[in-house]
Amino acid sequence: MPSISNKGKKMPESPIRKLVPFAEKTKKRGIHVFHLNIGQPDIKTPEVALDAIRNYDHKVVEYSHSAGNASYREKLTKYYKSKNIDIHADEIIITTGASEAILFAIQSTMDPGDEIIIPEPFYANYNGFAINSGVTVRPIKSNIEGRFALPPISEFEKAVNAKTKAIMVCNPNNPTGYLYSPEELNTLKEIALKHDLYLIADEVYREFVYDGNVHHSVMNLKGLEQHSILIDSVSKRYSACGFRIGCIISKNKEVMATAMKFAQARLSPPSFGQIASEAALETPQNYFEDVLVEYTNRRDIVVEKINQIPGAFCPNPKGAFYVVARLPIDDSDKFCQWLLEDFSFENQTVMLAPASGFYSTSGSGKDEVRISYVLKVEDLKSAMNVLGEALKVYPGRTI
Amino acid sequence: MPSISNKGKKMPESPIRKLVPFAEKTKKRGIHVFHLNIGQPDIKTPEVALDAIRNYDHKVVEYSHSAGNASYREKLTKYYKSKNIDIHADEIIITTGASEAILFAIQSTMDPGDEIIIPEPFYANYNGFAINSGVTVRPIKSNIEGRFALPPISEFEKAVNAKTKAIMVCNPNNPTGYLYSPEELNTLKEIALKHDLYLIADEVYREFVYDGNVHHSVMNLKGLEQHSILIDSVSKRYSACGFRIGCIISKNKEVMATAMKFAQARLSPPSFGQIASEAALETPQNYFEDVLVEYTNRRDIVVEKINQIPGAFCPNPKGAFYVVARLPIDDSDKFCQWLLEDFSFENQTVMLAPASGFYSTSGSGKDEVRISYVLKVEDLKSAMNVLGEALKVYPGRTI
Repeated sequence: MPSISNKGKKMPESPIRKLVPFAEKTKKRGIHVFHLNIGQPDIKTPEVALDAIRNYDHKVVEYSHSAGNASYREKLTKYYKSKNIDIHADEIIITTGASEAILFAIQSTMDPGDEIIIPEPFYANYNGFAINSGVTVRPIKSNIEGRFALPPISEFEKAVNAKTKAIMVCNPNNPTGYLYSPEELNTLKEIALKHDLYLIADEVYREFVYDGNVHHSVMNLKGLEQHSILIDSVSKRYSACGFRIGCIISKNKEVMATAMKFAQARLSPPSFGQIASEAALETPQNYFEDVLVEYTNRRDIVVEKINQIPGAFCPNPKGAFYVVARLPIDDSDKFCQWLLEDFSFENQTVMLAPASGFYSTSGSGKDEVRISYVLKVEDLKSAMNVLGEALKVYPGRTI
Repeated sequence: MPSISNKGKKMPESPIRKLVPFAEKTKKRGIHVFHLNIGQPDIKTPEVALDAIRNYDHKVVEYSHSAGNASYREKLTKYYKSKNIDIHADEIIITTGASEAILFAIQSTMDPGDEIIIPEPFYANYNGFAINSGVTVRPIKSNIEGRFALPPISEFEKAVNAKTKAIMVCNPNNPTGYLYSPEELNTLKEIALKHDLYLIADEVYREFVYDGNVHHSVMNLKGLEQHSILIDSVSKRYSACGFRIGCIISKNKEVMATAMKFAQARLSPPSFGQIASEAALETPQNYFEDVLVEYTNRRDIVVEKINQIPGAFCPNPKGAFYVVARLPIDDSDKFCQWLLEDFSFENQTVMLAPASGFYSTSGSGKDEVRISYVLKVEDLKSAMNVLGEALKVYPGRTI
């Protein structure tokens, strides 16, 4: 029997999905599972986007342009303008989700053996994309005591070597919810310029910024135009994960011309998703205002409730819809599995993501979990109550 | 300014799309261009598929399962059963087009430095996927005199070495229209078993087989179950290229488990496309019968008309909707560009794909073009007439 690839052997299993078989068994036992493990929002997709799909009137569903429909890219520039990001349509390639945009960014700029610096904890699939491309992730540690702020510049300097090609950040951050300050972005700019690195910023949570804070895009770092690559997606913005529409943006023409070759090889991004995404640009402003109020309430409850649990700690993040919380437990992988297999409170339990999967440094995040606050307030209250009860009886509790 | 990747530099520009800027200028001059350069059919997408999209009634467009919707995979097994291909739902992973399925197949089985044998001419994007994965394509030459039949087994034996991991075929073939015989498939099976190779078969043109001929799938090669990987797509079957829905199928559990890790990293295939594809399985049989009659007529016209041109030769292929024709020209790249830039007949011209882009061996296919017969009969007649006139006056003609 022929062997599988070494690359395939190294590919990580998704830390978010590996507990799914346990959860399925839990549900079969009649226990309700609160899903706080995945960034699948319950918010409704805007009607204007769904209406565009319902009114689809083409006779042949053709390939689109490999860079995406021109009309969509033109309108996207107006969206970005409204966010104070000034770009042209030919600086955008529409991709199949942010996932493909990240792959295009890595493949266009890095070869096997090259290195990319990423502050950890980070979105777990970055690891998969790096392994897929033969690229080594060099993590820089941010930590829960520092509320996941960017590590000092000296840490970056230590990580840079001749193989380093890029720094990648997620802002606002998945999994920590951290929002980078203008000062932190300037630090990144300095390092990128000094060492001639790309700065790849995954800004898919741009709309999810709380308490009157402001998001600053990597595209607005003056003098860094040839180094900056923006990764974006409609998945979270419009609660439209299934559209599979994202984009890669850069003012570096060589990067875009190269990404375009990868884009042409796979022919085109999904046509229906593009039509829905173009229509979604007409989503009324109050949709976002309502969503922001809802998520602020959700975050407040999760943060408050976790900090009331003895021995637990949860920073109050400014963005995205995740928190990483420290719990008084021996091992979050064990704990999350135990929640599904061996625990229930009033016939309910919770599904969380062990934070270990978001660290590249082995042994990190063992007493941390990522919680996605993607359920309505009442459910979150119940879920946090279940979590509190669980921590009273978990055999591996540390207090 | 940071450098782009060597991989990106090596990525080929699409041979099908590189003439597009010239065609755009031609149209601006008021000249009608018959597009015979790309496999974008003009056939209508089945109404039953579009109706499913128009009746979309979910409130949140969520991620699907990374392997695709279970209901779709279950129904797909019935489709395959109707084609005498016996598989289970867990032997299918739904992908974003056949493009992603090919990438998953290569990535799951091959590492950088490995080799894959492909009979040439072959679908040009195979090159891009191989370069993307650091895999070397070792072409085996099929030729127009032999009507693009599989080269003799001795040619394969010469190409196999310690790095060889797989053979890939497209059946029916893009670009040649060639349909592999059961004997040829058995030859491939023998080589795959003898040298412990995967046999990857791209069968996206399964429905397009003419003159009462029968398509034989790689999935029915007894004893090769652990080596066979099937690549499929709805793009051509339902004239639904924009759905971006395909799949990878194998009975090799290790291959599927590995492909699943790549699938999880990119989260899920497009939701709308899956819904349309599931509904498309209810397409009435007469849709396919009508399409087959239409394409048979188209093929007959193209083959007849080309063979009437002095010095031209076109085999009569049994499948797909392409022919590779030999023309009395010096260089097909130059000729195809000349057709757009310098020629018109009664204010019309044709856009063809130079066959050189479908060969991996440099210098091959210089007097050949690929013609996609994706236009209606009347247009094809006009287009072939234009081609005949062009060959009377092309400065680089060889007779």
